[in-house]
Amino acid sequence: MHSAPPRGVNLTRFTSGAPGIDSTVTHSFLSPLAALGEFGLISRIAAGVFTHESVLTGIGDDAAVTALSPGMQLLTSTDMLLEDVHFRRAWHDPCRLGRKSLAVSISDIAAMGGIPRWALLSLAIPSDLPLDFIDDFTRGFLALASESRVALIGGDTCSSRSGLVVSVTVMGEQRPDRIVRRSGAVPDNDIWVTGTVGDAALGLQLLELGETAPAELLSRLLDPDPQVSAALALAESGVATAMIDVSDGILADYGHIAEQSGVGGCLRLDALPLSAAFRRHSADLPAVPYQLALSGGEDYELCFTAHRSAREKIADCMKKCGIAVTRIGIVTSSLGVTAVNPDNTPYHSQTKGFNHFT
Amino acid sequence: MHSAPPRGVNLTRFTSGAPGIDSTVTHSFLSPLAALGEFGLISRIAAGVFTHESVLTGIGDDAAVTALSPGMQLLTSTDMLLEDVHFRRAWHDPCRLGRKSLAVSISDIAAMGGIPRWALLSLAIPSDLPLDFIDDFTRGFLALASESRVALIGGDTCSSRSGLVVSVTVMGEQRPDRIVRRSGAVPDNDIWVTGTVGDAALGLQLLELGETAPAELLSRLLDPDPQVSAALALAESGVATAMIDVSDGILADYGHIAEQSGVGGCLRLDALPLSAAFRRHSADLPAVPYQLALSGGEDYELCFTAHRSAREKIADCMKKCGIAVTRIGIVTSSLGVTAVNPDNTPYHSQTKGFNHFT
Repeated sequence: MHSAPPRGVNLTRFTSGAPGIDSTVTHSFLSPLAALGEFGLISRIAAGVFTHESVLTGIGDDAAVTALSPGMQLLTSTDMLLEDVHFRRAWHDPCRLGRKSLAVSISDIAAMGGIPRWALLSLAIPSDLPLDFIDDFTRGFLALASESRVALIGGDTCSSRSGLVVSVTVMGEQRPDRIVRRSGAVPDNDIWVTGTVGDAALGLQLLELGETAPAELLSRLLDPDPQVSAALALAESGVATAMIDVSDGILADYGHIAEQSGVGGCLRLDALPLSAAFRRHSADLPAVPYQLALSGGEDYELCFTAHRSAREKIADCMKKCGIAVTRIGIVTSSLGVTAVNPDNTPYHSQTKGFNHFT
Repeated sequence: MHSAPPRGVNLTRFTSGAPGIDSTVTHSFLSPLAALGEFGLISRIAAGVFTHESVLTGIGDDAAVTALSPGMQLLTSTDMLLEDVHFRRAWHDPCRLGRKSLAVSISDIAAMGGIPRWALLSLAIPSDLPLDFIDDFTRGFLALASESRVALIGGDTCSSRSGLVVSVTVMGEQRPDRIVRRSGAVPDNDIWVTGTVGDAALGLQLLELGETAPAELLSRLLDPDPQVSAALALAESGVATAMIDVSDGILADYGHIAEQSGVGGCLRLDALPLSAAFRRHSADLPAVPYQLALSGGEDYELCFTAHRSAREKIADCMKKCGIAVTRIGIVTSSLGVTAVNPDNTPYHSQTKGFNHFT
């Protein structure tokens, strides 16, 4: 979109990448994407964009120009998704991949209690990627953008020598007094989670084992639903003392709240909300189901803390949103996060949570 | 930083990527990066960050929280740089690559007349990348951030199976009446460019030919200097009717101004500002030097248009910034951009400008 990537020039012919160093790539025929070209692709994407009066200049200038609503602060989050690292083309159909690429960053804005507003989409596209794939990806991305009232205001496109790369930035806004950080949990607060946990991880586990995964679990993995309305309701009610979205697993993600709040926590395993599909399909697995429910990422539910006195208010508030919510533990003054078996013995997690590069 | 990427869980061991599908990557020893881990790397980067009172929450929550200055609108731009597409490790030392990764997006904010404020940095890191490389990259990125008073407020880190991927988003701000778009050029306006053009492209050309490129040209290619102060001076003076940064070559970039302003233009080849190093080293090349100067990208100079009556004001304004500026042509009411040889015959460009995917 705006902000063409840095690039050079090659006098004999232009290369498909910049700055002209990708000179080994040759095309024996003009692919549909090549025929469309960079600016054709941008126009094709821009044609379906939801827009909003806050967008003063969208796709097509050096930078986008937007206006925050009066009294609002800016919230910003970014995620990168790489083929064969974050997704496989064999598992992730392009339309749902497009939705998910936006959903994961919207979920971060929601986890701050923010209203998602604007998005940037960067794509590095391998030469063998069919134009249909890009069209379907874009359709999915823009459909969720429209449903979430998020305007795509810019991005970047270039060629990739090795797999599709997607980078998404989402910006949102919120009144300062409604923004919910990770750092506000207080000892004796309740720990809550929306929806159910472990479904996405179990879906992935079944795919990895080559088993047929049921649609309920697969849709959690491939088409996660960011909990924007529940998060906004919590932010507006003022009851959440700290909040995070569950992308690394509830154990690790509550761990981030605990660390940044200078507290600890105790999670009750028998309180973890498990879906019927999870219970049905995890029974036969060699894995301990609790492990998946505790440490499985990508549920994109909300984990938050609140004072005990807010229990009824939270139940009412979530009921109005049509979102299930469960108390799963308690914030402690002693540091460290522990999980407790139904018989009150400590549960020893096989992992400490997700850590890249290890 | 904040916003961990979507990821899954693998019960036998955690994978180096998310959502746990990169299960073929194994490490026979614990690399320094693996020993450091994702959160260690983030802390290492965060330790050197310039900050600013506008940053209410930086690295470490689901989203960053920032406050725009009163009366300002938000400017946003993003760029993605891929190894072996946009840069080669053999040519681009990590420190200057870090600087350049930020510079190209700062240049986009500058081209709108904006004040760059905040940045997001996402890195997909191959397992063979030495930790020293990341440290040097970060040092370069943060040095330019500090010099430019840009606060790094977030990002994303993950593993890559195929080369380093860098994605940078820069946000800035400006008063609505000072923002300069591509769309304001008017027939009979002068066309101006700062500095000299073609240097970066010639440096690249020499590298590609295996020749020794002089430091003056290489530094233009590897360590471009975004023209922030000149752009701000132009925006504040109110004289620029349209502006863009030169990343695709002056012919293509003025073409974007022309297209969005609904005008054409005529560029005088003998007016193009060429550096002494460019003149010296382009003389022996088979390429027509004009072609490099017209269509070579990555100079990151400013191309802008202004009314004839502003000539003296522009000269004064740029002199105060210590930036050379040259009138190179005139905006026309007839569409299309032409270049004219010194003998007033039309110059036929070998290319129409850069176009990805072709």
